[in-house]
Amino acid sequence: MVYISRKEHFNAAHRLFNPNWSEERNKEVFGPCANHNWHGHNFELIVTVKGEPDPDTGFVIDLKVLGDVIKREIIEQLDHKNINLDVPFMQGKMASCEILVIEIWRLLDQALSPLTEARLHQIRLYETERNFVDYYGE
Amino acid sequence: MVYISRKEHFNAAHRLFNPNWSEERNKEVFGPCANHNWHGHNFELIVTVKGEPDPDTGFVIDLKVLGDVIKREIIEQLDHKNINLDVPFMQGKMASCEILVIEIWRLLDQALSPLTEARLHQIRLYETERNFVDYYGE
Amino acid sequence: MVYISRKEHFNAAHRLFNPNWSEERNKEVFGPCANHNWHGHNFELIVTVKGEPDPDTGFVIDLKVLGDVIKREIIEQLDHKNINLDVPFMQGKMASCEILVIEIWRLLDQALSPLTEARLHQIRLYETERNFVDYYGE
Amino acid sequence: MVYISRKEHFNAAHRLFNPNWSEERNKEVFGPCANHNWHGHNFELIVTVKGEPDPDTGFVIDLKVLGDVIKREIIEQLDHKNINLDVPFMQGKMASCEILVIEIWRLLDQALSPLTEARLHQIRLYETERNFVDYYGE
Amino acid sequence: MVYISRKEHFNAAHRLFNPNWSEERNKEVFGPCANHNWHGHNFELIVTVKGEPDPDTGFVIDLKVLGDVIKREIIEQLDHKNINLDVPFMQGKMASCEILVIEIWRLLDQALSPLTEARLHQIRLYETERNFVDYYGE
Amino acid sequence: MVYISRKEHFNAAHRLFNPNWSEERNKEVFGPCANHNWHGHNFELIVTVKGEPDPDTGFVIDLKVLGDVIKREIIEQLDHKNINLDVPFMQGKMASCEILVIEIWRLLDQALSPLTEARLHQIRLYETERNFVDYYGE
Repeated sequence: MVYISRKEHFNAAHRLFNPNWSEERNKEVFGPCANHNWHGHNFELIVTVKGEPDPDTGFVIDLKVLGDVIKREIIEQLDHKNINLDVPFMQGKMASCEILVIEIWRLLDQALSPLTEARLHQIRLYETERNFVDYYGE
Repeated sequence: MVYISRKEHFNAAHRLFNPNWSEERNKEVFGPCANHNWHGHNFELIVTVKGEPDPDTGFVIDLKVLGDVIKREIIEQLDHKNINLDVPFMQGKMASCEILVIEIWRLLDQALSPLTEARLHQIRLYETERNFVDYYGE
Repeated sequence: MVYISRKEHFNAAHRLFNPNWSEERNKEVFGPCANHNWHGHNFELIVTVKGEPDPDTGFVIDLKVLGDVIKREIIEQLDHKNINLDVPFMQGKMASCEILVIEIWRLLDQALSPLTEARLHQIRLYETERNFVDYYGE
Repeated sequence: MVYISRKEHFNAAHRLFNPNWSEERNKEVFGPCANHNWHGHNFELIVTVKGEPDPDTGFVIDLKVLGDVIKREIIEQLDHKNINLDVPFMQGKMASCEILVIEIWRLLDQALSPLTEARLHQIRLYETERNFVDYYGE
Repeated sequence: MVYISRKEHFNAAHRLFNPNWSEERNKEVFGPCANHNWHGHNFELIVTVKGEPDPDTGFVIDLKVLGDVIKREIIEQLDHKNINLDVPFMQGKMASCEILVIEIWRLLDQALSPLTEARLHQIRLYETERNFVDYYGE
Repeated sequence: MVYISRKEHFNAAHRLFNPNWSEERNKEVFGPCANHNWHGHNFELIVTVKGEPDPDTGFVIDLKVLGDVIKREIIEQLDHKNINLDVPFMQGKMASCEILVIEIWRLLDQALSPLTEARLHQIRLYETERNFVDYYGE
């Protein structure tokens, strides 16, 4: 079993905000991350799949295929967008990295399953160089 | 003459948009950077000052003083903010890195002049790891 | 279960030295790391906790709380210090990264337990960009 | 149990090419990676071993010993070489990162076993900053 | 005058070799860089242009235009190629970074001049993270 | 004229301390950097020389020669050392980066002059990823 990873990036705006709470409660809990007029990040996304290398190619998965799936399913929906307002799969959800990484797993798992025997292993999402989250599908 | 540099960072949202142009013209020129609902970045700011080391301290400038000035004058005004909407010194200006770096120079030069004999030499601003601008005050 | 990580850094001096051994034996085993007058590093510390995102906040843990705990419990005790001489929790212990990372786990686990249902998952400590250690509490 | 890692690098040329296939099939599957005249990379290799710290040294393994083994067994055979043509342990194998990382594991495991009670845990190989593979020996 | 920079990358094989010299002389001068079967690198290319920001766009140059020119003129000719064998503009020249950076300047200066009033200022080429060259056109 | 740069690193302990001042004055000016028991850093040193590429080699300077000079003159004297106590060329001087970079220039200029027509252009010294100094010899 070999694990292979591909890093992609996107730039997006977001805001941490619970619509069931008052503005004061949001400010108190989320601090500057609740800024009414949004803020943003350069996100780095690392997708890891695992499987046995194909004897004919030496590949667990063709990285071009993996890259294309990530770009089509995730990057095109998030890059230069507002995560709270512009991204269909985040509607009605908190725009935190924890929630985002679970949704990214769900979309990639769905898109990769018909294409490859390799299985999704890990999603890592860097919000900044100093803050990042991991999700393993469970 | 020794040059000493300090790196600080801020996260912000922005949008490239010329209010004198139609929506179509903005889309055509700025592409996804004109996204109506904003996008954002982790900006890295490197400030360089030059001067002769003080014989008593070995310092061109006390980096704590430099860091405090950068934080007070620049980071507190930009971090977790919308550059177009929330930042007084960017009102009525294009929110491009080129314009931002000129304004950062102006504010830092003003704030540092009374504090030190060291002179501001360069401002470098990274919008992403792959795009950055430099300004030398002229 | 989502894993969330926060990176902090500190600068410190240390020396690898076993007081039960002769100077020669120390030199032989630890080489330049035994230098009598110390040497030092920019350490990078990555702390990972795991848990389920809170439905109201989208957070596994408030990163501000996590950052504050790391700073108070670990960074303030190690930054700009001599690990062998100045750090109470390292007294009588070898100042290697392997020992340091176990002690950091112990202190953070103790400090985080009363504050959060999220559990400490991993401590990673970079001594240099090329040397690092991980500890998972067992 | 503490995990300790050492990063080393090498520069090498390679080509993805299945000799049982036509030139056209190779181009179709491997794209520019099949370029007849080779291409190359700065590879980064991270080797992780795990074990209990020795009470006399605080070491899981002497990093100088680990570094020397990696350099002698792996780096000297790969650095400034052509992976397809010059590297004995890759003869008759696909020069993909997936295959390379398995062979590196085999050689390091063999070389480290007689020297230390620490066990090899993970091999990570970066082909570029954006593409990397991991192998855990099974 | 603002300076704006764009980073692009390419992977290539090369060999340092003077065809007027004996194999022995080449080995003596270039060491492992003369390896007959090539070696390779992940090159990072940073292109800096300078000019005055356009009042309508805030741009010194549209970075999309700059990126497209770099990709068309330079990256497509070098990426996944053998610098000695596959690259027309390097025929009959030493495949060192010093020579490469001069040729890159020549091609980019020629391609950018008709497109923009901004002038090429600097080309930086990283062969590895530790070795890089700069050229300013004179 | 091409500029070529080589990065090397060293780990060292130091302390900012003016022996003509009281302990209180030192604490006041240098803060935690005055810690009596030292602290330390992973320093990164980038040395840039400039010259015309030799037509036979394509080299401004043989990077192996440059690397060897930097290691012999600078790294061996600073690595795993105490800058205040162990380094002959820093005796009686403030152990700040500003002073260190001037001394490094002096030693390298002296060592390189008889070996090459290339001239030393810049010394950059990173104390941390966020603090660095440059010196151009004047």
